[in-house]
Amino acid sequence: MRKNTKPSRARSVQPRLRILCRGGVALGPGKAELLAWIGQTGSINQAAKQMGMSYMRAWSLVQTMNRCFKGPLVLAGRGGPGGGGAELTPMGQRVLGLYRQMEQDSLKIVRANWQALRKLLRH
Amino acid sequence: MRKNTKPSRARSVQPRLRILCRGGVALGPGKAELLAWIGQTGSINQAAKQMGMSYMRAWSLVQTMNRCFKGPLVLAGRGGPGGGGAELTPMGQRVLGLYRQMEQDSLKIVRANWQALRKLLRH
Repeated sequence: MRKNTKPSRARSVQPRLRILCRGGVALGPGKAELLAWIGQTGSINQAAKQMGMSYMRAWSLVQTMNRCFKGPLVLAGRGGPGGGGAELTPMGQRVLGLYRQMEQDSLKIVRANWQALRKLLRH
Repeated sequence: MRKNTKPSRARSVQPRLRILCRGGVALGPGKAELLAWIGQTGSINQAAKQMGMSYMRAWSLVQTMNRCFKGPLVLAGRGGPGGGGAELTPMGQRVLGLYRQMEQDSLKIVRANWQALRKLLRH
């Protein structure tokens, strides 16, 4: 999944925030992207396709997120891959917003050191 | 490798910075930890053992780092796993220092949003 989350670019820095809950990774770059796609497409299946992963894999990631947070982040209709839509709950939108803000803040704060590090890279 | 880089804790945030060069990942949490262990133990083999990875794996990661930066980050003596020591070059120390600073800055800046996100986690 990770390989699809962000396009690789020559000489760049990616702040990849990992939110841990007792049971494992509650949220990371891949799950955040999945949430965003579900919000945009209204469908777990479409979101999975956008990320090049199977419906079952996407469903499993959604289950993990829903389990780690106090309430579900995604509400899915009945019907599996073909039927039913899916949507982010208000908590899902809030969590995704906080995560994106953390990513942006992180990227901003590392900029100066990244410029120094970048000069040491060959390509 | 990733599983060994940081102990998992209940409800925590890990800023995992990934530095990309044209050829792939120049530096990330695992490679940074490997650099730190090489600096502390003076040996790629000892560093590998500390991280529960094979000598060959550690050697390969060192090669990738040395290839991505303008100069080597690690100088290794002859002799493979058993013989010869290894040390960080001044560039290796500088790169590791910049990376750790970026990690710390990143952790500091996400703190407020992390406190908000943490409250939404079940465990």
